Amino acid sequence: MSGTTAKGSVVFVGAGPGDPELLTVRAVNRLATADVVLYDALVDPRIVAAIPEGVQKISVGKRAGRHSFTQPEINALLLHLALKGRKVLRLKGGDPTIFGRLGEELETLRGYGIETEIVPGVTTAMAAAARAGISLTHRGMASAVQFITASNKDAELPDLPWAKVAAGHATTAIYMGRKLGVPMARRLIAEGAPADLPVLVVSAVTTPNERIQLTTLTEMADVLPECDEKSPVLLILGKVAALASARAVEVADVGPAPLFGKAGA
Amino acid sequence: MSGTTAKGSVVFVGAGPGDPELLTVRAVNRLATADVVLYDALVDPRIVAAIPEGVQKISVGKRAGRHSFTQPEINALLLHLALKGRKVLRLKGGDPTIFGRLGEELETLRGYGIETEIVPGVTTAMAAAARAGISLTHRGMASAVQFITASNKDAELPDLPWAKVAAGHATTAIYMGRKLGVPMARRLIAEGAPADLPVLVVSAVTTPNERIQLTTLTEMADVLPECDEKSPVLLILGKVAALASARAVEVADVGPAPLFGKAGA
Repeated sequence: MSGTTAKGSVVFVGAGPGDPELLTVRAVNRLATADVVLYDALVDPRIVAAIPEGVQKISVGKRAGRHSFTQPEINALLLHLALKGRKVLRLKGGDPTIFGRLGEELETLRGYGIETEIVPGVTTAMAAAARAGISLTHRGMASAVQFITASNKDAELPDLPWAKVAAGHATTAIYMGRKLGVPMARRLIAEGAPADLPVLVVSAVTTPNERIQLTTLTEMADVLPECDEKSPVLLILGKVAALASARAVEVADVGPAPLFGKAGA
Repeated sequence: MSGTTAKGSVVFVGAGPGDPELLTVRAVNRLATADVVLYDALVDPRIVAAIPEGVQKISVGKRAGRHSFTQPEINALLLHLALKGRKVLRLKGGDPTIFGRLGEELETLRGYGIETEIVPGVTTAMAAAARAGISLTHRGMASAVQFITASNKDAELPDLPWAKVAAGHATTAIYMGRKLGVPMARRLIAEGAPADLPVLVVSAVTTPNERIQLTTLTEMADVLPECDEKSPVLLILGKVAALASARAVEVADVGPAPLFGKAGA
């Protein structure tokens, strides 16, 4: 109410893919000195549990079908807390600069002159590649990598040069791939992408529920519904996917009976 | 020499963009328990200096014009040390799964049954976005982001749908952008990309020599030669670049005399 309250600040921190050891040292330091932490549903519960006592925790988690806070409500709450003079930490799964609605939250705060900082984190695609034992840009196989996601809740495909990308020397990582996977595969195949293009279906990477399956563009439609509904799914499409370490992945067996083994019956 | 020596292991660790606090907790833990660390020239000297005493350090640094080790020599050294039973840590700038020649090193080791692990890190593009205060995928402005680099030492352009990408709703980050920047800008403009497309030129991000300049596709050719030759340069192209926090960036002034201020003479 008084006109001279010191303004607080907001630090946006990437929580990484799940495993608490994949937090950066700075993330750990900032969590230790925050007044209040606002965290998403995608932030691993082990990380939330490790937030020091005395730091207020607020779940603003958004998950398909359960919106505890709308985006405008999150923007307003960040602003409210900062204007009250509090040191706010906004904890986002993965890296905050990718598919994290960071832009909207930043704009709101900057409009009021609130001091902000961004602490980058390990993004899910790189954690998935690490766990699968592949390079996203294997020399001679992929000189580029692109990250995409559905452009809205209805899993609308973003406007991209699909077939060129799938045929060319690029790796594509699709965030929140469960809904987008099937329409995307259909679109790519329609535009001439090879039906046997390798795909890694990675769910809940670096968590106890992690699952990594190697499949193809055509068979992905059978693999995706098998994934645990609560786990975020990331897809890695491209030639590099086939290089996944045999120890790291299951090879999805969803097609007709194999030619060898399991014969008869 | 004996046939029964226990095999060692190799852990590939992302060192992040420079600032030691952007190491992950796991990276710090693995550095503390390694026998020997092989590190690139791009790994920040502050991180190298912080490697615990008693851990052997080997610089295998590659920099333009100064090759201390060739890639096959690095592959062979990793294999040699692992076969001798040592716990080897291969430290790479940024994240190891992007533009890090990880694939070649992994293949060599797997061929000999050496146990490997990959610890992901913070990649330079995300650190640059964080420092500039932007989202790489600002809602309504970019629904995709792609990372590219020159496909070889001669800065040959990778085969990508250039104009479509530049005109569309995607952000492009170019690693090792100093040499690639100018031919790339020429190519994009020739294919119809807007000459005033915003570009962030980010050098030595999160180090004491960090410099972030906001320019355009046409003016980039004047900005790039100004960058310190020893600093790695990352370019961020796309509409989101223009949202960079005014406090974080210099606006490159390399064109004709400004219309206002500095008038006369």
